[in-house]
Amino acid sequence: MNLAPALDWILDSTVKGLPPAAGATRLSDIGARKWNLLKGDLPLPAAVIERDALHHNSKWMRGFLELTKVGFSPHGKTTMAPQLFDLQLRDGAWAITVATMHQLKICRAFGIGRVLMANQLTGRLEIDAVLDELASDPAFDFYCLIDSLEGVALLRDAAARRKIGRPLQLLLEGGVAGGRTGARTLDQALTVARAVGEAGPLLALRGVEGFEGLIGGDTPQEQDSKVAAFIDFLVAIARACADENLFAPGPVILTAGGSAFFDLAATRLHNELGGRETQVIIRSGCYLTHDSKSYRELVERLIERLPAARKLGDGLKAALFVWAYVQSRPEPGKVIATMGKRDVGFDVTLPVLDRWYRANLHTAPQPASTLSGEHKVTGLNDQHAHIEVPDDSPLQVGDRLCFGVSHPCTTFDRWQLIYEVDAAMNVVGGIRTYF
Amino acid sequence: MNLAPALDWILDSTVKGLPPAAGATRLSDIGARKWNLLKGDLPLPAAVIERDALHHNSKWMRGFLELTKVGFSPHGKTTMAPQLFDLQLRDGAWAITVATMHQLKICRAFGIGRVLMANQLTGRLEIDAVLDELASDPAFDFYCLIDSLEGVALLRDAAARRKIGRPLQLLLEGGVAGGRTGARTLDQALTVARAVGEAGPLLALRGVEGFEGLIGGDTPQEQDSKVAAFIDFLVAIARACADENLFAPGPVILTAGGSAFFDLAATRLHNELGGRETQVIIRSGCYLTHDSKSYRELVERLIERLPAARKLGDGLKAALFVWAYVQSRPEPGKVIATMGKRDVGFDVTLPVLDRWYRANLHTAPQPASTLSGEHKVTGLNDQHAHIEVPDDSPLQVGDRLCFGVSHPCTTFDRWQLIYEVDAAMNVVGGIRTYF
Repeated sequence: MNLAPALDWILDSTVKGLPPAAGATRLSDIGARKWNLLKGDLPLPAAVIERDALHHNSKWMRGFLELTKVGFSPHGKTTMAPQLFDLQLRDGAWAITVATMHQLKICRAFGIGRVLMANQLTGRLEIDAVLDELASDPAFDFYCLIDSLEGVALLRDAAARRKIGRPLQLLLEGGVAGGRTGARTLDQALTVARAVGEAGPLLALRGVEGFEGLIGGDTPQEQDSKVAAFIDFLVAIARACADENLFAPGPVILTAGGSAFFDLAATRLHNELGGRETQVIIRSGCYLTHDSKSYRELVERLIERLPAARKLGDGLKAALFVWAYVQSRPEPGKVIATMGKRDVGFDVTLPVLDRWYRANLHTAPQPASTLSGEHKVTGLNDQHAHIEVPDDSPLQVGDRLCFGVSHPCTTFDRWQLIYEVDAAMNVVGGIRTYF
Repeated sequence: MNLAPALDWILDSTVKGLPPAAGATRLSDIGARKWNLLKGDLPLPAAVIERDALHHNSKWMRGFLELTKVGFSPHGKTTMAPQLFDLQLRDGAWAITVATMHQLKICRAFGIGRVLMANQLTGRLEIDAVLDELASDPAFDFYCLIDSLEGVALLRDAAARRKIGRPLQLLLEGGVAGGRTGARTLDQALTVARAVGEAGPLLALRGVEGFEGLIGGDTPQEQDSKVAAFIDFLVAIARACADENLFAPGPVILTAGGSAFFDLAATRLHNELGGRETQVIIRSGCYLTHDSKSYRELVERLIERLPAARKLGDGLKAALFVWAYVQSRPEPGKVIATMGKRDVGFDVTLPVLDRWYRANLHTAPQPASTLSGEHKVTGLNDQHAHIEVPDDSPLQVGDRLCFGVSHPCTTFDRWQLIYEVDAAMNVVGGIRTYF
């Protein structure tokens, strides 16, 4: 990868999170500025990634992939941070997954050679852009999803127009009733697969894909069993396609596994496909920073399902946090902080108070668990957080609060600049996102 | 204003929404590229502002201000688009309102001379940055909120350290029990006001502020009457401060009025303050693009409350939309579109389908109301929208869908580039946001 477009980015006073007196600052120089969050060198709110937890998670996933013998194409949409893609590729990722043409363009701008678009490619402009990219770089390896005959026709017509000399590689998407995209039945899937086969050599069916992350259940056990059944359905689609010899040459790619159930994908996609070589790819995007609530709970369940993962040591650790000030304590039981919908995700659950710090009193951030009584984020406005606290909570105007997030994707997309910090909250680098 | 930093922005392939083959493009040149959304010149999803509606709303607000004889400081946090601030200032805005130091820095980078920070200023770094800005430009006029003795101490100490030679101008914030920031009682408010008075000439109390937009009620009538009572409470605070002669010289500023109740602020803040000259300022940020759901309903109520506003002609019109493709019709009753949480707000209600368009069939977008049966957005994932449709809906893969938003603030912040389009969906310009 070529990280220069990110590292050479010159930040100015229009970038949220940069100290107001910093002046024009190259991203790669941020670590040398000796800023420290606790010393008040950063304006708040500020988003930080804790380096130790980040590298722990990176190592944990390497171990998981070795344990389960699967390939990895982490979903780039989570972070949209080429510097983190680079870490993931160095950790052995086979490709980076994207959801949109914009995200693909970011990967290509940074020299990523293999991209899995875990999505349909629909617009003519978008299809042509992908074909042009494939034409311009014979080494570029690209896959996208297909789930309808209309989609096959759009891609086939574009490929016929563009004549790039090699097939557009497709993964047949399986879905669930009431779910998102993807063929609902084996018959529907095979109908699409046959149409792809007929559109050869313009199109090539290279595998089967599914996303299990939206499957619900009344209990965790029911959810797990529905997810397992869905992954088995993907294998059944692949087996039927193999039986009809609908796959193009090369290993058959079998891919599923978002950030909550990648164990089930890793263990159940491994299957016999009538002698065809297979390549199992999981796609978690959230493992790298993990979170403090929704994925924390989901990954605890994952490790219960796959006790062998305990061999990898401590599980994933939350690495992404947003810091803010207490700006008002307007009632004894209420604290208002300088962080809102513009700064932190709220789509799965609200953020959670993780630590607090008072200058001139503390030498290090104090865990929220040391505050007696519950301190609970009860709401966010665009630029404010509402926190319910006990009447005798010590929090006061000027205190710094550190919030853990729930669903990292929707916190990453609120920042162009995320600070990388060490355990003492020294800024050791800056990470740029491209949303 | 100096719009050069926005207009001279060179967009490249890393900017979401720019056509992939556009190459490096100066923002001010976008209108000359002759792109048309319906001809497929833009990648989707794309966010657009419809010029006619924008200018209608701009004119409507000018009329409203003339009708009610109040001043205006539109909240910049809604759009964070200096090009739109410029339109608002040309429409006679007295100041631009902001919520954070970052937003203040954006205003200053574009040469805005008067800023009302409708928020507490808490961190030492942030306070010092404001004081330095005031010191560096004697013409810069700035106001921020105060609601606690701790806040007074922080500001006073910083002003004493920085010695900028003129007072930091404060507005005393009134609040409601269970609400956000702001003094809950007249006694609390007066305690803070007296502390500001004692901190003169470092600090100067210049008025009273409140935000009524979060006040709820079991019925619209109850909500309206609570909002009215709150605005009367602000006047009572101002009267008590005037009685104690706590205001610094100059007109007393009385400001409230977000995007839902600015009529009540405009009509009830006008009051006698013991002979002191007053200046009433409302602060709506959302009127300019309005929306298709939450503010549409709230502003319909506003016009019912103030029938004189009917004289201004048609009410506010929705100007902000997000376009996406149908990418899958996986079940007869379900459409999946290429737009998700990354592209459109979902914090108040989900977006609403407004129009649809099929190339080679339609000459113009067709109102969603011409589709028989309800077409309802039922959910968003990060990059997808789920739409429930009748089984016989004509929508098919490749159709373009235009969605109206609910709460513009949380759609603006998902785009750095928003296209300005005319009625035929020709791109006539680009608007840059700074979140």
